[in-house]
Amino acid sequence: MGNVVDTLIDRVYRDALDNHDGEVAGYIPELAAVPADSFGICIATVDGYVYERGDTRSPFTIQSISKPFTYALALADRGRVAVGEKIDVEPSGEPFNEISLDPQTERPRNPMINAGAITAASLVAGADPADRFRRIRAAYSAYAGRELDFNKAVYASEARTGHRNRAIGHMLRSFDIITEDPDDAVDLYFRQCSIDVTCRDLSLMAATLANNGVNPVTSATVLDSDLVEQVLSVMATCGMYDAAGEWLADVGLPAKSGVGGGIVAVLPGQIGIAVYSPRLDRHGNSVRGVQACRALSRELELHFLHVTRASRSSVRARYTVAEAPSRMRRPAAERALLDEVGYHSRVYELHGDLLFAGAEAAVREMANAESFLEAVVIDVRRVDDVGDVAATMLAAARSDLAAQGCGVALVDPDGLLGESASDLTGRGGRVFVDLDSALQWCEDVLLELHGPEADARQQIALSEHPMLAALGEPQRTLLEEVLDTVRFHRDDCIAARGTPPSGLFLILSGRVSSTVTDAHGVVHRIMTLSAGMSFGEMPLILRTPWLHDMRADTEVTAAVLSPQVYDDIAAHRPDLEVALLQRLAAGAYEQLDLALRSVVRSGVGPLR
Amino acid sequence: MGNVVDTLIDRVYRDALDNHDGEVAGYIPELAAVPADSFGICIATVDGYVYERGDTRSPFTIQSISKPFTYALALADRGRVAVGEKIDVEPSGEPFNEISLDPQTERPRNPMINAGAITAASLVAGADPADRFRRIRAAYSAYAGRELDFNKAVYASEARTGHRNRAIGHMLRSFDIITEDPDDAVDLYFRQCSIDVTCRDLSLMAATLANNGVNPVTSATVLDSDLVEQVLSVMATCGMYDAAGEWLADVGLPAKSGVGGGIVAVLPGQIGIAVYSPRLDRHGNSVRGVQACRALSRELELHFLHVTRASRSSVRARYTVAEAPSRMRRPAAERALLDEVGYHSRVYELHGDLLFAGAEAAVREMANAESFLEAVVIDVRRVDDVGDVAATMLAAARSDLAAQGCGVALVDPDGLLGESASDLTGRGGRVFVDLDSALQWCEDVLLELHGPEADARQQIALSEHPMLAALGEPQRTLLEEVLDTVRFHRDDCIAARGTPPSGLFLILSGRVSSTVTDAHGVVHRIMTLSAGMSFGEMPLILRTPWLHDMRADTEVTAAVLSPQVYDDIAAHRPDLEVALLQRLAAGAYEQLDLALRSVVRSGVGPLR
Repeated sequence: MGNVVDTLIDRVYRDALDNHDGEVAGYIPELAAVPADSFGICIATVDGYVYERGDTRSPFTIQSISKPFTYALALADRGRVAVGEKIDVEPSGEPFNEISLDPQTERPRNPMINAGAITAASLVAGADPADRFRRIRAAYSAYAGRELDFNKAVYASEARTGHRNRAIGHMLRSFDIITEDPDDAVDLYFRQCSIDVTCRDLSLMAATLANNGVNPVTSATVLDSDLVEQVLSVMATCGMYDAAGEWLADVGLPAKSGVGGGIVAVLPGQIGIAVYSPRLDRHGNSVRGVQACRALSRELELHFLHVTRASRSSVRARYTVAEAPSRMRRPAAERALLDEVGYHSRVYELHGDLLFAGAEAAVREMANAESFLEAVVIDVRRVDDVGDVAATMLAAARSDLAAQGCGVALVDPDGLLGESASDLTGRGGRVFVDLDSALQWCEDVLLELHGPEADARQQIALSEHPMLAALGEPQRTLLEEVLDTVRFHRDDCIAARGTPPSGLFLILSGRVSSTVTDAHGVVHRIMTLSAGMSFGEMPLILRTPWLHDMRADTEVTAAVLSPQVYDDIAAHRPDLEVALLQRLAAGAYEQLDLALRSVVRSGVGPLR
Repeated sequence: MGNVVDTLIDRVYRDALDNHDGEVAGYIPELAAVPADSFGICIATVDGYVYERGDTRSPFTIQSISKPFTYALALADRGRVAVGEKIDVEPSGEPFNEISLDPQTERPRNPMINAGAITAASLVAGADPADRFRRIRAAYSAYAGRELDFNKAVYASEARTGHRNRAIGHMLRSFDIITEDPDDAVDLYFRQCSIDVTCRDLSLMAATLANNGVNPVTSATVLDSDLVEQVLSVMATCGMYDAAGEWLADVGLPAKSGVGGGIVAVLPGQIGIAVYSPRLDRHGNSVRGVQACRALSRELELHFLHVTRASRSSVRARYTVAEAPSRMRRPAAERALLDEVGYHSRVYELHGDLLFAGAEAAVREMANAESFLEAVVIDVRRVDDVGDVAATMLAAARSDLAAQGCGVALVDPDGLLGESASDLTGRGGRVFVDLDSALQWCEDVLLELHGPEADARQQIALSEHPMLAALGEPQRTLLEEVLDTVRFHRDDCIAARGTPPSGLFLILSGRVSSTVTDAHGVVHRIMTLSAGMSFGEMPLILRTPWLHDMRADTEVTAAVLSPQVYDDIAAHRPDLEVALLQRLAAGAYEQLDLALRSVVRSGVGPLR
C-alpha cells in the first residue's frame, strides 16, 4: 500500500508547490544562484525513519539554522549559568541583525539573533579557532548522523561582505560580552553558517532534538536532555525571527529558519521536520517552508499545546481480593474468610504515562482509602513510562502505607520503578513480576491478620485429604496402604514439562506452583496449590507428558499414587477408579471457576 | 498518611516564605494596603481536586490575569480571524503599558499588554457596556466555578487614576483599532481588572484551560478547545511581561501574572497552578510567585517541553495466530494447518496515546509486512487515546490492506476509533469487542484460504464424534441408542448460568460459545466449541449448576445425554462410566493446554 503518511506529506507538498511568492536571498552571489523553486519536505521519526518528498538530497548552506546547535554546544561546554551571563533568552521584537544589546542587561537578547549567535560561537571551547570550528562541524555532523561538508565558496563570500556582523562583533567586544579578538568569533560564525546540509540532514538534526538529544539513527548522545529543554524553549520563543508569536500560535512547534531556505521544527518526543525552499518572506523565513509547516501541524495535529483528551484517570481499575481472587486454590474456609475481610485489601491497576498529574491521582486515591487498608497491590504493568517525580511520589506513598502497618506490593516485571523482584521481606514493599503472585501474597496478609492458627492450616493428615475423605471406608483404607509419602525441598522440581507421568500427588503440607517458561526464558506461574489439593491427575489418566513444570515453593509433603499402582486399581477396582475420576473432575471444575473469576478481573467489575 | 503532594507543595511553600524581596504595587491605595507577606499556593487537577497551602481563600483583584480570559471571550465572540485583524500575537520586548503599536502592522503587539487587552475588551459582544461587563464576569465565574465578586473600591481608584490607559484607548481609537468610544473600552478593562478572585479560584481557572476548556468541577464547557490552544500559545510567549523568554526556558508553562500578586500557570492536559503573594519584582511579577512556580516546575517535572523517554514503539506486541491461537477448540487437522500458514496472519497490539508519531510507526510496520499478509488484527484495547489524525491514518491503512485482499479486524470494545462492533461483513474491516473473537475470525480467514472443503469440516455423524469414536463397539452402540439429537438456532441460550445440569452435549455441527456476564452487563466469552466437541460434562458429573451461559453462535446440532440416562449408565455399566470420564478428563486437559497458550500470548513470546 502507499503509506498513508506519504500520502499526507504529498498533499501538503502539492498544495505549497504552486506558491511562487517571495525572493531568494541575494546578498551574496552563491545564495542568489540557487534554483529558486527547489522544494523538499522531510519528516524524521524518533526511531530514525525518514519520510522524504521532493528535493531532499540537494545540499544548501545551513545559515541561521546553525544557531540553536552552536548555542547547544556552548551550553554543553560552559554550562547554563555561564552562558546566561553572556546571552539573554528574551524574544527581541527586532530584526535579527540589529547592532544592539538589551539596554537593561547589556547582553544580546537571545542566541537566535546574530549578536547572540556570534557570542555563542565565541563560547565554544577549543585550543584555537581551527579546533573550535572542527568541534562545531563535528557536533552538527553528530546531529545529522553523517560527516557534513564545508562550503568554501559561500564562506568566502560571507567573509568578504559581512561588515554588519563584524560591527556586531566589535560592539560585543566593547561591552566585554566577547573578551577575545571579535574577528575570530565572527569568522567562526561565518564558517558555521557555511556548512552544507540537505533537507534530510536537517530532519535528522531536528529528530535528534525531538529524541532528547540522542541521534535516532546512530544512537549517539549528542546533547544532554536538560540542555535540549533549554534549546527548544529558546527556539519556541525566538526561532522564527520576529514572527515567533504567530508561529507558536499557528504551528506550535519549536523551530528555526535560515536564509538559505531551510526550516527545522521539533515535536518533542515525536518527530523532527525539515523543509527546504529558497524563496523568503519579509521576515526572512522560507515561504513554502512556513506554509508546509503550518499545514503539517494542522493535518498531523502537531501543535505542542494540543490536548487530545479532557481528562482521564491514571487508575485503570481498583478492586479487592474478594472481587478478584488469586489463582491459588485455597480451602473453602480460607476462601470464605477472604470474602469477608477482602475489603481491607485494594488492587490498583495504573496505566498510561505516569507523570506528576497521573501519580497525583493514584496517590490521592490511596490516601483516601488508607484508614481501612491492610494490604495494597499497585500494578504498573500497563504503565508506559514513569517520570522521576511520579516514581518518587509512588515510593513515598508506599512507605507511608507501610508505616501505617499496611502491606504494600508492587507488580513491576520490567523494573519501571527501579526496583527488582526481591525475596520475601515482610509485609512492606514487596515487588512481584506478575499480578497473581501479588494477589496471593495480598490474600496471605489478610489471612495472617484475620485467620485462625496459620500453622494448623498448613498441615493435614492423609486421611483428611479431600481425595480420601470423600471415599467410603474400605476404599480409603486401600488407598492409604498404597500411597507413598514423599518430602520435597523448596525450589525442588517435582515434575518437568515434557517428562512422562510420574503419579498423582496429594499435598499434605507446603505449596507447589505450576509454571511454564517461554522462549525468552520468562517463567509464567499458572497456579499455586496447597495442602489438601492434588496434581498430576491428567498426565496419569491420559498417559501424556507433564504439561507444566511443578515446583516446590516451600518444604512440601505429599502422598503419591504411582502409575503402576493406578493401573493396578483400574484393573481390579473399577469402583475406586470411578470414585477417583469423579474427585479429579471436581478439581478441574474448581479450576474453571477460578479461571472465570480471572476473566472478571481482566474485565471491568464483579460478577452479578 | 500525609499526601506526598501536600508534602512537596509544603516544601516549595516554606522555601519561598523567607523571601521578602520586592514591593507591593502602590499606584492606588487599595493595592498598597494589602498584607505584603500574604502567600498562597494552589494546584488544581483536571479532575477538580485542589491542593491548597497558605492564604488560598483571601480575595484580591485579578488585574492583568484577566487578560487571557477576556482575550478568549473575544476570540469566541468574533473568531480568530477578526480578532487577528485587531491584535497581533508577537512578544513585544517592551513594558506592558507602552503607548505604542507595532510600527509595521499598526496593531497592538499582543493581547497581554494593555493596548491589546483594552482592544480585546472592546471586542467582547454585548448590548451595551453593562451587558458586556456582565458577560465578562459571567465568563470568569464559569472558569472559577463560582460567582465572582466585583471590587468597587479598586475599580473606583483605577478609574480615577488610569490616565495612561485612557491615553492608550485614544491612541487605539485614532488608529481605528477601536471604532467606538474608547473610554467605554477602557472602563470595561478597569472593571474586568477589579474582579475579586482567590488563589483557589485562579487555580481552577487555570485547570479549566488545562482541561481543554472544560471546568473540571462543574463540567461546564467554557471555551472551545481550538481557542484554548491559541490562548495558551499567547500566554507562553507573552504572559510574563518582558521576562517571557526566561520564564519559558526555566518554568516552561504558559502563564499570566497580575499586579495584584497573582500568577496562573497551565500544564495542558494535567494541572492548573496559582500562586498569590503581593510583592513584585522589577518586571511586575510576584517574587514568591515566580520562585514557587520555578520550584514546582523543577520538582514536579512540569516543563512542557520535557520529554521523559528517548523513544518507544506504539506497537506493544506483534505475533501470528500460530504463536498465540484463539481459545477456540479446533480439530487437530485445523490446528496443524494454522501452525503451517499462521505466518500469513499478524496481530498488532498497540498501546499508549496514539498521536501522529505513534500511528505512523504502526502503519509503517503494517506496510512493510503487507506483501505476505492475508489476515491482520489490530488490537487497540491498551491504547489510551487516539488523535483524529491517528484515527484517519489507521482507517486508511485498514482500507489499503483490505483493498489488497487482506482481511482486517479491529479489537476496539470502547469504540475508540469511532466504529462499533458490527455483524459479519466479509473479510475486510470487522470490529470486535474482544481479542479472542478476532483471533478466531483471523484463523477462520486462513482456514478458508488454505483449508480443504470448509463445509465438510462443519458437520460430523454421531459415530464420528470423538466421544463415541474412542469407545469399543458395544459401548458405542449403546450410547448411540440413548442419545437424543437436538437442534438449536443462532443466539439460542442452550444453558444458563446457575440452572441445574441438563445433560452432556456432543456437538455435531455449528458453534457454541460459553460466556459470563459481569455486573456491568459486559459479556465475556470464555471459549467457542465446534463440531466434535462436547460440553455439560462437569455439571452432569458433579451435579452442580451450570457455571457459564452456553449460547449457539450458529445453527447447532447436538446429541444430548440426559442426567437420567447418565445415572442409568452409572448404575449398570461402570465400564462405560469410566470410559466417559476418561474422555472428559482428556477434554479438560486440552482446555488447560489452550489456557497455557493464552498465558504465552499475554506474555512476551512463543513457548520454547
